[in-house]
Amino acid sequence: MTAQRTLLRDLSSSIGQEVLIQGSVDVRRDQGKMIFFDIRDRSGKVQCVVLPGSEAMETAKRLRPEWVVGFHGVVNKRPEKNVNQNVQNGDVELEVKYIDVLSEVAELPFERDADVNLDTCLNYRPYTLRSEANKAIFKLQAAIVEEYRQSLRRQEFVEFQAPAIVGGDAEGGAAAFKVGYYDHTGFLATSPQFYKEIMVGPFERSFTVAKIFRGEKHATARHLSELTQMDFEMGFIENELEPMAVLETVVRDVVSEVGSTHKDIFEAFKVPVPALGKKFPILTLREIQKILGVKEEDDLVPEDERRICEWALKEHGSDFVFVTRFPTSVRAFYTYEDPSEAPYSRGFDLLFRGLEINSGSQRIHNYDMLVERIKSRGMKPELFSFYLQAFKYGLPPHGGSSTGLERFTMKMLNLPNVREATAFPRDMNRIDNLLSN
Amino acid sequence: MTAQRTLLRDLSSSIGQEVLIQGSVDVRRDQGKMIFFDIRDRSGKVQCVVLPGSEAMETAKRLRPEWVVGFHGVVNKRPEKNVNQNVQNGDVELEVKYIDVLSEVAELPFERDADVNLDTCLNYRPYTLRSEANKAIFKLQAAIVEEYRQSLRRQEFVEFQAPAIVGGDAEGGAAAFKVGYYDHTGFLATSPQFYKEIMVGPFERSFTVAKIFRGEKHATARHLSELTQMDFEMGFIENELEPMAVLETVVRDVVSEVGSTHKDIFEAFKVPVPALGKKFPILTLREIQKILGVKEEDDLVPEDERRICEWALKEHGSDFVFVTRFPTSVRAFYTYEDPSEAPYSRGFDLLFRGLEINSGSQRIHNYDMLVERIKSRGMKPELFSFYLQAFKYGLPPHGGSSTGLERFTMKMLNLPNVREATAFPRDMNRIDNLLSN
Repeated sequence: MTAQRTLLRDLSSSIGQEVLIQGSVDVRRDQGKMIFFDIRDRSGKVQCVVLPGSEAMETAKRLRPEWVVGFHGVVNKRPEKNVNQNVQNGDVELEVKYIDVLSEVAELPFERDADVNLDTCLNYRPYTLRSEANKAIFKLQAAIVEEYRQSLRRQEFVEFQAPAIVGGDAEGGAAAFKVGYYDHTGFLATSPQFYKEIMVGPFERSFTVAKIFRGEKHATARHLSELTQMDFEMGFIENELEPMAVLETVVRDVVSEVGSTHKDIFEAFKVPVPALGKKFPILTLREIQKILGVKEEDDLVPEDERRICEWALKEHGSDFVFVTRFPTSVRAFYTYEDPSEAPYSRGFDLLFRGLEINSGSQRIHNYDMLVERIKSRGMKPELFSFYLQAFKYGLPPHGGSSTGLERFTMKMLNLPNVREATAFPRDMNRIDNLLSN
Repeated sequence: MTAQRTLLRDLSSSIGQEVLIQGSVDVRRDQGKMIFFDIRDRSGKVQCVVLPGSEAMETAKRLRPEWVVGFHGVVNKRPEKNVNQNVQNGDVELEVKYIDVLSEVAELPFERDADVNLDTCLNYRPYTLRSEANKAIFKLQAAIVEEYRQSLRRQEFVEFQAPAIVGGDAEGGAAAFKVGYYDHTGFLATSPQFYKEIMVGPFERSFTVAKIFRGEKHATARHLSELTQMDFEMGFIENELEPMAVLETVVRDVVSEVGSTHKDIFEAFKVPVPALGKKFPILTLREIQKILGVKEEDDLVPEDERRICEWALKEHGSDFVFVTRFPTSVRAFYTYEDPSEAPYSRGFDLLFRGLEINSGSQRIHNYDMLVERIKSRGMKPELFSFYLQAFKYGLPPHGGSSTGLERFTMKMLNLPNVREATAFPRDMNRIDNLLSN
């Protein structure tokens, strides 16, 4: 018996040979005298058969889905009438000679691909992550974050590691979680903003993929308490159009990459690869409100975001639309406002299929102006002394943006809840298990 | 005047032309009638001159290091006697016609490349990160983490996002920081261990680059309270040699990549590119103690780690050495112990230039054995119910390892303190600023 594992994708080049395959029992079909198994490994699936009288029969009778096994056997070509050219290994079958049981399973709560509700899905996350749908979602997510980084690297951005523990709840909200830090109180970062601006000093262009933490008491389908933020920041800009252009390149690169390498996933989810159009439309808040015929509020409500995305798809063939010129008062304190453009600021959001997945802006780069802004928001510049050093010692005009990885993934596949695009979601009610009241 | 920026690396192809360069004042040399500047941007440096009578002279007189500027001027070829072929732009000079001041600096605490002590360096981190040495350290770090990911991707590992907030201080130490989580108490993850083992279910091979948090009251040169851990986990292994082989491939890939693309950094730090030898030596704890002539303790002390690395370099031409066969009792509870090898376990450490940068093992994959181990360590299996699902529903034999990014970076350049390899280090006494007592 060979002890060298053959991956299932390589079986068709081993016809007639004795091989060892290792994987999980996907399906078991007991036909009385014979037992058929579908075995899966990281590279695919294959049908296996245990024939009457086989030494493997006693063990085969015990096997159930999710048991982890090694099957020693011979790769046979299937008879012509049983060949299925449309599936992997559709032309071969493993005739099982001997079985190693690597892990037994007493009982499963439900079938692996069962359509369970979200709470059940999350309660059993270590198991449900194995479903075909979940494997697809998180493979896609891995590809998204990888291409995000690669696109920025091509645009000369340097990666850095932003801290998660910070000294203050800097943006002044009540949204930061407190951490008992030795004899002190620390906070969990609500954004890598300050640090990426600091990194403009050494690198001009820098990015980070960082965990951020938001303690708002939201219980919606689009909020998480811990999320993965993909952030970049760049120096020597004229205005917000430059970070918007970098972001558009990144998003186009990501969509093109995952749209081609994971076409099968979009097909399986019956969702089109996002439409990119020629150029993402750029609309001011006021223009959008005019198009939609709604009142001139300071922000868009979710219904507006949904409708303007429909409009952008219809009129511009783009699933993405930029919103600019929000009033400065509703944006983060460091957002740049040009006197000629007041009371509107140089911030922007990127909407994708009805949801804001990204927020960015040109930032204030002048030390005195920034101190002034902090004061005018009722905050204390002393609490920002570390961050303010970057400005005190000279920082170029700069800007950048933040994309939520989970929201991006969610909308890519039109999932109804951001938790479905999060391997281990944390929210008001859950850290792995439901929190007791 | 052109408004389009030219990067400094492209100047030599613009001789005789009018250009706009943007960057920071690196050096200023006032020669009375003329003022010379070295300007730096993300692509390099160039010497600029403001000639007597230039319209730019008034502004030039005010400029000091770190001011951020745009210089409009003409790229001149230097006279033959002033050409320096050994530096970038050594054959050209910018004759400055007009200056835009983008950011002023009132006063600097010390020169950018000044040799300050570590506390001062960290107190002024937003400024000191701009030094040539720090830019080099963090460019190298970005390259390390990038190649770590690429090497694993080539070996068919799928990236995932591990959570930072967890429900319990699972490994039972007192080392986890507590988080106020809505009306509950959460903890900061001390490792992505449980989650990467869970991900072996869907992907067989998975990896994450995750922040982890350690509340031990250490104040050494090699401990941080928040660090970046590069973790992988793989299924269907025979024993710990397989994750060790994957790790060795990753480390070789990283060293080869950064050793060639960042040769200049190693030269500037006067540190050789790490020696890889033909194969990393693998020694058991007992073998090492024999070689060193020290007592058979359960672990190595830092001095032993240093000495065995010297030995490995001398005898095997390798800056890396694996240590295996630690007693099970001193390793994490999930470490696999084969009955035939008791009381030693299938754990391993990787030492690099005298320091442990990585720890790994084959893990227990059998549900009952794992529950038993948890109990035998005085912990409650109920608290591990989420993690244990992965085993209850069938997990293959698996193993993996964790590499500390900051320690790896530190030893790559032989830095004396791990904080120097951390952009924003957190320790007992510091979160950006020193914590008050």
